[in-house]
Amino acid sequence: MALAYSHYMTSDKPIDALMVVSPPSPSSILGVIPTQDDLKKIAAHKAVEFVKSGMVLGLGTGSTAKHAVNRIGELLRQGKLQDIIGIPTSKVTHEQALSLGIPLSDLDSHPTIDLAIDGADEVDPHLNLVKGRGGSLLREKMVEGACKKFIVIVDESKLVKHLGGSELALPVEIVPFAWKFTADRLQEMFKEAGCIAKLRRFSENGEPFVTDNNNFIVDLYLKEDIGDLKAASDAILRLAGVVEHGMFIDMATTVIIAGERGITLKNKSEL
Amino acid sequence: MALAYSHYMTSDKPIDALMVVSPPSPSSILGVIPTQDDLKKIAAHKAVEFVKSGMVLGLGTGSTAKHAVNRIGELLRQGKLQDIIGIPTSKVTHEQALSLGIPLSDLDSHPTIDLAIDGADEVDPHLNLVKGRGGSLLREKMVEGACKKFIVIVDESKLVKHLGGSELALPVEIVPFAWKFTADRLQEMFKEAGCIAKLRRFSENGEPFVTDNNNFIVDLYLKEDIGDLKAASDAILRLAGVVEHGMFIDMATTVIIAGERGITLKNKSEL
Repeated sequence: MALAYSHYMTSDKPIDALMVVSPPSPSSILGVIPTQDDLKKIAAHKAVEFVKSGMVLGLGTGSTAKHAVNRIGELLRQGKLQDIIGIPTSKVTHEQALSLGIPLSDLDSHPTIDLAIDGADEVDPHLNLVKGRGGSLLREKMVEGACKKFIVIVDESKLVKHLGGSELALPVEIVPFAWKFTADRLQEMFKEAGCIAKLRRFSENGEPFVTDNNNFIVDLYLKEDIGDLKAASDAILRLAGVVEHGMFIDMATTVIIAGERGITLKNKSEL
Repeated sequence: MALAYSHYMTSDKPIDALMVVSPPSPSSILGVIPTQDDLKKIAAHKAVEFVKSGMVLGLGTGSTAKHAVNRIGELLRQGKLQDIIGIPTSKVTHEQALSLGIPLSDLDSHPTIDLAIDGADEVDPHLNLVKGRGGSLLREKMVEGACKKFIVIVDESKLVKHLGGSELALPVEIVPFAWKFTADRLQEMFKEAGCIAKLRRFSENGEPFVTDNNNFIVDLYLKEDIGDLKAASDAILRLAGVVEHGMFIDMATTVIIAGERGITLKNKSEL
């Protein structure tokens, strides 16, 4: 079954199957080549089609997720959605949702979430993710781990053959105490994958980046595939000083990918 | 080989073998029945016999460890120990060691530690520990995980058949964000062991207890044996929101137990 922007623009129904896009291309429909931000917005709006009135929603963080949050606010204002409760995954998203008038709650009051929508930094062929380059990986993992359905929205630049494959950061949230010790042990742990571990710092002043939970982030840069992700996850988590890592393994139920040729949906259940 | 207080009082040599105490009892030697604090002090002083000049030392936290830190300070003042570098496991121990004039450093500068001495809340027959009722479990685990040798000092009331067996707290350090959600999931995880999870609070004002790392502590109270400790450890650590737990599995190399009948040493290598 083909899905292109023309379909996306007109359909009200979510699409539950794996879909591969066919022409016409978005540039031929829109008349211009979409920017990366256009693609993020297209994926985000597609994801919001899955939102129904009455849902408890996990609200993601980052440049793609913000489009989804904006769209939910818009549909609430238009009366097309009602009785939504949002659970934000960061202080930034909390502020954004408040400004849009989206009713908010938290995990303590709503330990089960119907649907979460969020971006990702990498998506592998099994729909495992790297998240956290924006720094919100812990709250995202808590919220998205409590969801019945988790839709990930990305532009096609985020697809990788294996996690770490972009050679951009695999983030690990650590306690500030003895951070260098912890960073060195992480680098040592993945030395066979050519790992370099770097403390994330603010570019403006060189001070350590501090998460919403007052922790630091160590970014792991990997040259090679680290292999068994669950084994790698357990090894990282066993290191005292580590709070959480940015690999989201077996969590996404659907990934929506916007590319120049259109939208693709992949469902975990159909892999 | 027998070891009683008479031996302890006179010997300068560390004892490397498993030892079982025989009479005469300490009360017959000391002429009084030792208090629990006397026993803690006896175990602590015994442990400090293993300290040699030039060592990098992990300095534990709590009512038993403080006797060891005091004793190290005393031997430094007397010139019987020299060139010691202490790595404290808490802010409290940092202050105590500073006040005693013990030269201090940190894990970042000294990632390998010769010997750590610390107390424990429970010790099982395999020398696995519960620690953290004092709230310093994370820094203790980081420091003591970096040690070549880790001597645990306890009075005999801390011996249990299985971890959790005292029905006192098994502490878990968690991020404050959505703490109730995390506590509920921990309780659910061990429900077959009759687990009750409680947020640790200051008795004075009911406010949540805050660790040196600005996190909260959830205390797990267990009615039954939780079985495979490594599996339980991984399950706890996989829960997003958990920072660390108080089970110290396969970490102690020696446990020194002070009881009314004398001192017992158990070495992990001889179990």
